[in-house]
Amino acid sequence: MTGSTGPGLRDLTATRGLLYGGDYNPEQWTAEVWAEDVDLMVAAGVNLVTVGVFAWSRIEPRPGERDFAWLDRVLDLLAGAGIAVDLATPTASPPPWLAHDHPDTLPVTADGVRLSQGSRNHFCPSSPTYRAHALAIASDVVARYADHPAVVMWHVGNEFGQVCHCDACAAGFRAWLRARYGDVAGLNAAWATTFWSQAYSRWEEIVPPRAAPYLINPTQRLDYRRFCSDTLLELYTAQRDVIRAAAPAVPVTTNFMGFFPHVDYWSWAGALDVISDDSYPDPVDPDAPVLAALTHDLMRSLAGGPWLLMEQAVGAVNWREHNPPKTPGRMRADALRAIAHGSDGVLSFQWRASRAGAERFHSAMLPHAGVRTRLHRSVRELGTDLAALAPVAGSEIRARVAIAFDWSSWWAAEEPGGPSARLRVLPQVLSWYRPLWRRGLAVDLVHPEADLTGYDLVLAPQLHLVTDAAVANLRAFTAAGGTLALGPFSAVADANTAIRTGEFPAPFTDLLGAGGQEWCPLPDGGAHLDLDGHRYPVHTWAERLEASSAVVLGRFAGADLDGAPAAVRSPDGRLLYLAAVGGDDLLEAWVATCLEQAGVTPSGQVAQPPPGVEVAVRGDHTFLLNHTRTPVAVPLTRACRDVLTGTDHPHTAPVPADGSVVLIERQP
Amino acid sequence: MTGSTGPGLRDLTATRGLLYGGDYNPEQWTAEVWAEDVDLMVAAGVNLVTVGVFAWSRIEPRPGERDFAWLDRVLDLLAGAGIAVDLATPTASPPPWLAHDHPDTLPVTADGVRLSQGSRNHFCPSSPTYRAHALAIASDVVARYADHPAVVMWHVGNEFGQVCHCDACAAGFRAWLRARYGDVAGLNAAWATTFWSQAYSRWEEIVPPRAAPYLINPTQRLDYRRFCSDTLLELYTAQRDVIRAAAPAVPVTTNFMGFFPHVDYWSWAGALDVISDDSYPDPVDPDAPVLAALTHDLMRSLAGGPWLLMEQAVGAVNWREHNPPKTPGRMRADALRAIAHGSDGVLSFQWRASRAGAERFHSAMLPHAGVRTRLHRSVRELGTDLAALAPVAGSEIRARVAIAFDWSSWWAAEEPGGPSARLRVLPQVLSWYRPLWRRGLAVDLVHPEADLTGYDLVLAPQLHLVTDAAVANLRAFTAAGGTLALGPFSAVADANTAIRTGEFPAPFTDLLGAGGQEWCPLPDGGAHLDLDGHRYPVHTWAERLEASSAVVLGRFAGADLDGAPAAVRSPDGRLLYLAAVGGDDLLEAWVATCLEQAGVTPSGQVAQPPPGVEVAVRGDHTFLLNHTRTPVAVPLTRACRDVLTGTDHPHTAPVPADGSVVLIERQP
Amino acid sequence: MTGSTGPGLRDLTATRGLLYGGDYNPEQWTAEVWAEDVDLMVAAGVNLVTVGVFAWSRIEPRPGERDFAWLDRVLDLLAGAGIAVDLATPTASPPPWLAHDHPDTLPVTADGVRLSQGSRNHFCPSSPTYRAHALAIASDVVARYADHPAVVMWHVGNEFGQVCHCDACAAGFRAWLRARYGDVAGLNAAWATTFWSQAYSRWEEIVPPRAAPYLINPTQRLDYRRFCSDTLLELYTAQRDVIRAAAPAVPVTTNFMGFFPHVDYWSWAGALDVISDDSYPDPVDPDAPVLAALTHDLMRSLAGGPWLLMEQAVGAVNWREHNPPKTPGRMRADALRAIAHGSDGVLSFQWRASRAGAERFHSAMLPHAGVRTRLHRSVRELGTDLAALAPVAGSEIRARVAIAFDWSSWWAAEEPGGPSARLRVLPQVLSWYRPLWRRGLAVDLVHPEADLTGYDLVLAPQLHLVTDAAVANLRAFTAAGGTLALGPFSAVADANTAIRTGEFPAPFTDLLGAGGQEWCPLPDGGAHLDLDGHRYPVHTWAERLEASSAVVLGRFAGADLDGAPAAVRSPDGRLLYLAAVGGDDLLEAWVATCLEQAGVTPSGQVAQPPPGVEVAVRGDHTFLLNHTRTPVAVPLTRACRDVLTGTDHPHTAPVPADGSVVLIERQP
Repeated sequence: MTGSTGPGLRDLTATRGLLYGGDYNPEQWTAEVWAEDVDLMVAAGVNLVTVGVFAWSRIEPRPGERDFAWLDRVLDLLAGAGIAVDLATPTASPPPWLAHDHPDTLPVTADGVRLSQGSRNHFCPSSPTYRAHALAIASDVVARYADHPAVVMWHVGNEFGQVCHCDACAAGFRAWLRARYGDVAGLNAAWATTFWSQAYSRWEEIVPPRAAPYLINPTQRLDYRRFCSDTLLELYTAQRDVIRAAAPAVPVTTNFMGFFPHVDYWSWAGALDVISDDSYPDPVDPDAPVLAALTHDLMRSLAGGPWLLMEQAVGAVNWREHNPPKTPGRMRADALRAIAHGSDGVLSFQWRASRAGAERFHSAMLPHAGVRTRLHRSVRELGTDLAALAPVAGSEIRARVAIAFDWSSWWAAEEPGGPSARLRVLPQVLSWYRPLWRRGLAVDLVHPEADLTGYDLVLAPQLHLVTDAAVANLRAFTAAGGTLALGPFSAVADANTAIRTGEFPAPFTDLLGAGGQEWCPLPDGGAHLDLDGHRYPVHTWAERLEASSAVVLGRFAGADLDGAPAAVRSPDGRLLYLAAVGGDDLLEAWVATCLEQAGVTPSGQVAQPPPGVEVAVRGDHTFLLNHTRTPVAVPLTRACRDVLTGTDHPHTAPVPADGSVVLIERQP
Repeated sequence: MTGSTGPGLRDLTATRGLLYGGDYNPEQWTAEVWAEDVDLMVAAGVNLVTVGVFAWSRIEPRPGERDFAWLDRVLDLLAGAGIAVDLATPTASPPPWLAHDHPDTLPVTADGVRLSQGSRNHFCPSSPTYRAHALAIASDVVARYADHPAVVMWHVGNEFGQVCHCDACAAGFRAWLRARYGDVAGLNAAWATTFWSQAYSRWEEIVPPRAAPYLINPTQRLDYRRFCSDTLLELYTAQRDVIRAAAPAVPVTTNFMGFFPHVDYWSWAGALDVISDDSYPDPVDPDAPVLAALTHDLMRSLAGGPWLLMEQAVGAVNWREHNPPKTPGRMRADALRAIAHGSDGVLSFQWRASRAGAERFHSAMLPHAGVRTRLHRSVRELGTDLAALAPVAGSEIRARVAIAFDWSSWWAAEEPGGPSARLRVLPQVLSWYRPLWRRGLAVDLVHPEADLTGYDLVLAPQLHLVTDAAVANLRAFTAAGGTLALGPFSAVADANTAIRTGEFPAPFTDLLGAGGQEWCPLPDGGAHLDLDGHRYPVHTWAERLEASSAVVLGRFAGADLDGAPAAVRSPDGRLLYLAAVGGDDLLEAWVATCLEQAGVTPSGQVAQPPPGVEVAVRGDHTFLLNHTRTPVAVPLTRACRDVLTGTDHPHTAPVPADGSVVLIERQP
Repeated sequence: MTGSTGPGLRDLTATRGLLYGGDYNPEQWTAEVWAEDVDLMVAAGVNLVTVGVFAWSRIEPRPGERDFAWLDRVLDLLAGAGIAVDLATPTASPPPWLAHDHPDTLPVTADGVRLSQGSRNHFCPSSPTYRAHALAIASDVVARYADHPAVVMWHVGNEFGQVCHCDACAAGFRAWLRARYGDVAGLNAAWATTFWSQAYSRWEEIVPPRAAPYLINPTQRLDYRRFCSDTLLELYTAQRDVIRAAAPAVPVTTNFMGFFPHVDYWSWAGALDVISDDSYPDPVDPDAPVLAALTHDLMRSLAGGPWLLMEQAVGAVNWREHNPPKTPGRMRADALRAIAHGSDGVLSFQWRASRAGAERFHSAMLPHAGVRTRLHRSVRELGTDLAALAPVAGSEIRARVAIAFDWSSWWAAEEPGGPSARLRVLPQVLSWYRPLWRRGLAVDLVHPEADLTGYDLVLAPQLHLVTDAAVANLRAFTAAGGTLALGPFSAVADANTAIRTGEFPAPFTDLLGAGGQEWCPLPDGGAHLDLDGHRYPVHTWAERLEASSAVVLGRFAGADLDGAPAAVRSPDGRLLYLAAVGGDDLLEAWVATCLEQAGVTPSGQVAQPPPGVEVAVRGDHTFLLNHTRTPVAVPLTRACRDVLTGTDHPHTAPVPADGSVVLIERQP
């Protein structure tokens, strides 16, 4: 499901090194400003900008008209300065006239409210009218600029993620279901519609999961999420195909949004030539670096190699409730982390801060206060650093550990009406990932049906839904000597989110030598878990297991679970199971156990990162990001050179407070 | 308003003893599973199952079709195994085709959103189309199974409680109002429509309380709640009448939902042959046992004798935000409490856990993990215990204390726009009930217009709305020597929720010798109340009283109320009034005062329950439920025998940790 | 923008002294009650009542009918007793028949929900049908009572504040925009619709800010707020013009609602003959007196002299979630504070407590419990006090300090999508006002484009949006020797809420000698600010400034801002800037700095109010309100006489616990 068949990122970076730049919205500015922008971009080391994302109404101010003159001039200007362009099909935000003339293009909420123009993204993905207009404008943009020398990448739409509940979507949903299930009887079986008298007699009775009196059929909801993701993919693919026909040598992308809940990126990855992502770690959340690293690893895994940080912020965003800015040190660390985890560039939203509109308070590479600002100085310094890091471009990361993650499983696990709404998938994944991140270990994310060859350890922190194919794949992995560790509430549901009955995790209890009888969400106060002579608090969730042949690694202490198995290992040592949710200390111990069981040990130039220092290795480069407010000396296993300063460090590498350095092994 | 005229529960339990079983949904399973189910039911002591609640789409898969063959076979199988059936009219959840073909059957929210199929209960109670289809399917089910030997009870629909705001409801509301008020002038007077220019000139101007700019006329809202309750009762009654015509000897029920806010069960009780209830105490709420006992007492009072626990959970539910399971001890205590408070059986939702659908995570008597589980072992043990308790069936409970409770009053008291949204009726009732529960005293709930003969003490913790008839009834009770204790914000409103002007409680101030001038919701920090030499904190609410001839039992301390009367007693001692909301300590003292005034003292085999041990007496059986984690020895006033173990206890009865025992006085 | 051209308040108070009374809704009562009411009003000193606010359905029970007989009688009764009437056009709440016959008169939410009758205020301000009916009933009421001797003031509608999103409003909005911007190109420029592809091609594409997928264009939202305010003003003005034509000598008002977020009262003030306000300080909020004083100062500033407290509560309100009553002392203090800040009367909602309807739990001058109540005794005592204070009527207040405040700026500052939703305008204004209030200093509020002559100091705590005219006005003020102090996030936006680029506050950095580069919402934990040798905590918000020629008064300590300028003063001392949000201690120090810089010192009979004692000076009267629970002796700068007791106080004035006194300088 990963990898791409078309032209890719390597072609771009081979000559340019790491890509640097951001969104550029010239339609907001006069031609005088364009000229200044290009000069300032060159001064800042910018070599790639994304143009045209929100330009539909500028290009087609009235139905059927086309105004390309301004864009011709902008692209020529950029080309003249040697700045490459990632050109967008401007389909993310239709002009107001489309909404007015064709209200059927507007999206509808689950409550039946048809949303209005005045914002952005106001389209129904199923609307034939929207589709026709979007394809027409995209085709004309492609036709005009397919051969423009500035255009080195195409950017389809923006942040695909719309969800709509209108009648066109209902019709599309039925067609999707018909393709999946064949006939109504098949659908009734898959959806278990004998429950609550939900059996359908004809396709037309089926509607999206709109507002209803109580819990909606969970398979209906799950399939609607799948349908929405697939429908958006159709929108993307239609535009991509237009581009491929006109410009087969230019790679096509669209910007992902990390662990975005409405689109299954595994199913999309193969349709993109370049995997690109928008990443906005919260500068005041101490967990944000961990989540950012995890998300970058997801992107690299989707790409099967280098990817591209398409959007980030150099300072504050404007869409959280409270938006502290980044320090220059944090800005640089965020950029270098992305490189360290496989990005071949750093693009920001946006080049020049908007004077007006809903994002006027979003930071930009060129802020309102102008060039002589701390922020812009940092932007230029980063441009210099990235140029110096050109050799990193295209290099690979090899992971022995993988985390199994799947959108269908995420959706199924968090359906309303489960044992606990407090058990959430991403926090679980993050808690299992953090000990790996702290060690600077490379981690891939994998679809549970993907080829697992080459991994020593696969973690499945909360893989709730497993298809039969996934079960077979994971079992084959352990049979081949791999180590698999399952977290709580895993392997509970099948592809239709029906429960796999019997003791849980039902498809694995024979291997495990243990089985669970009850999910036990914990009352406030939680309980404890004794593991390896230590007692750890557990909270939110536990499970009642009984072990037969399994080795009991840990037991619960307290509450109704006193003495019951909490962490077990199969007799052959290849399968581990943790039946609880715990804090950082417990997960540190648990993941250490898993690594030891799998024989995975850290390698590289830093054996043991000091507290507060993040380490990541890409190819022969080691990145050290100091999140503390004091300078740190990081012990090295081998003599290294600081790539940016040229200084050699035989034993320890100094990292300034709030600073980041990049090392390479010193050539003897 | 209580009692029933048709055949009842006693006929069923006379031969069967206590009833045991649960909802059984065979349409979710294959015939092979049915056979296994029946065997396992027999092994577990099951003697009654509820069938068909959600079977409409299975019986009528397409409009007008009927498929009864499967149900014939299931009922025959059950009959063959001696398991009786409570057969449902499957009208709670219409098939999707009804919603699709007749959108007018779908309910509409106050915001005008027409809800969709895909969940359950998606019908408008006023819809003529729904009514016609529901009556047709109910009639055919009744015709087919009226004489089936398995069917010993009929179960109309499920958990009636829908609220809709559509135009059909508007029309029905107008007809209901016309019947109540005669003409528009009468309505205008009752609703006080001179306020805010709300006078109606024609019936058709009146709509349900839909979304409006600000507070809606409170009498309009109150009447709409009454109308909704009455409309649902019409639905029930129409189906009941079909059953009575075809099977006059079989009792009819529908399952209540405790203190359910949308239906006035006092007005329903007389229409049921068996009062049955769904009870889901939260296993981690320490107050849940008190609320469950209170609710059971309500059901027994509605029935005027034994009632039936129609649904409960043997483990976890799936519809709270966080759903810890029950321990086996808690499961057993919940079941025995219901018996102790008058239920003649214990039925659970559901027999076999669903594999799919929105309730797949709800516990069941036969869990996903199967027969060899701690949960199922407990289920079988309970079956054994209930069989041994057969003599309890049909026995009565005699209460000398009653709590006045009325839905109209509840609705009126919690209307928006009152002195405080923090003063809530159920918490008030519970706080006055808790001291009685702690003593193991029998308590009835009574409608304020009901015959109060036989009670020594009537408590009205927050009887906000009192009709003229209720006033007369309560005054007559005190005139006949009964003791009446009123709580804060009582007797404030008349039948139309207009204020009874003058000092409050206006209809009683002459008897009381005291009157109130102002309701005084308390700022954070509250105040204190001095009663009998003790100082108790009060919070949320106080009132400014002035006493003339009343005896002042307690006074406020602090804030603007310093020294003002807080608890008073009429000169003749028959009427008490508490003008504050307090904690458990205050209510303990206050209720002790009321009991002493009324001369009520505990009788029975346990004079003083130890802390954490719940006591309830039914007929000659005493139930002891130990909520602590340590064994307890309960002192007895008379020698007893443990009914389940046969052990005699001359002085004290041992109760295991988290355990329950049932005693009977030892026959000398 | 302030001041009035018609007849005014002075004519009324010249003969009557201070006005006293409240809303009187005789339509809720029988004629017998009317007679009793008039007698009780006279006994309480009432001299003005507001009649007819919600009488539309009583006057026009069916379309086109008129029933004035009852109102004739009420007005005659009042006139006979010497009680003047503020007569309302009853247009605030249409009869249900209007809603039923003309659903287009009903308002529509942003989600498209058309609201229903059953409450009040259910009209769309743009609806031609509503407008026609409202003007018809208003005209007939005016025609009938223009010459009635009781009617001394006209009261148009009630609390104008409706917001609607229907198609009629959309049409009105377009007309308003056309008048403002001329053509679509002008609108596109003003709204910066190049952002997010929002360019309009025709007027009809523009809709109100209805529900949309994401943030809506901020200028669209800002203009819609302006349009809504203007549309309501049209409603008011149309009715006022009818009155002026029929009764040119009678002043016209409508009741404002303090810092009401949906109407720009600066733009309204000139259209009223009497500025009147509804004021409901929360009796348990310790900050309520400060906010009430500030709001009264706003009203006096809108009026350019005396104003009228049109509504307040003598006890509890019923519309907060929890509504503790007022003590008599608090009731009296609230009334006297209004007088002290320029009100020429005290009117309450309402005279007699309603028996029914949505406001039956709102306190009234004559409570449900009747005449012999603590509350009513207080009402009579206040009547006596106000009569004794007749000489205060018409007297002026002279302020040397002004606070710049503007609705457009408020709206712009709190648009979603800004740096922080936690930075709110009113709390900022209040925190700068509190130190002035604590000193008993007179303060005006001013529109930023108003004539500032006569002020020594103008504070702009958070004047986010400044028009070019405002910039010129404020600069001219400092050029003329005035002192201007700007708070954080001020002078950021222009009239269209586009950012004034460059360092901020961009239009003032040249004067200030300092400029800001970044807004820095602070993480939890905040930072500190060192000012004049003290260290103060700051929270929520800071800014990164660089000072060139400015004098740095304070610097940040901590976080990423360590050592950066936080409070600066221009080289000429006329402009001060505070770049942080702090607590009371910081603002106390900051405002002291501003006062010192401007040379403003307290004058009057109280130099230094003791803690908990509020002081306000109006003309030659000084009001002392003791908010503590102990008596206080207030030191005087000059010998005074207690106006209400006649006692002379040469050196100190005693104020009882929870009591208030009014002093006048003793004539030697």
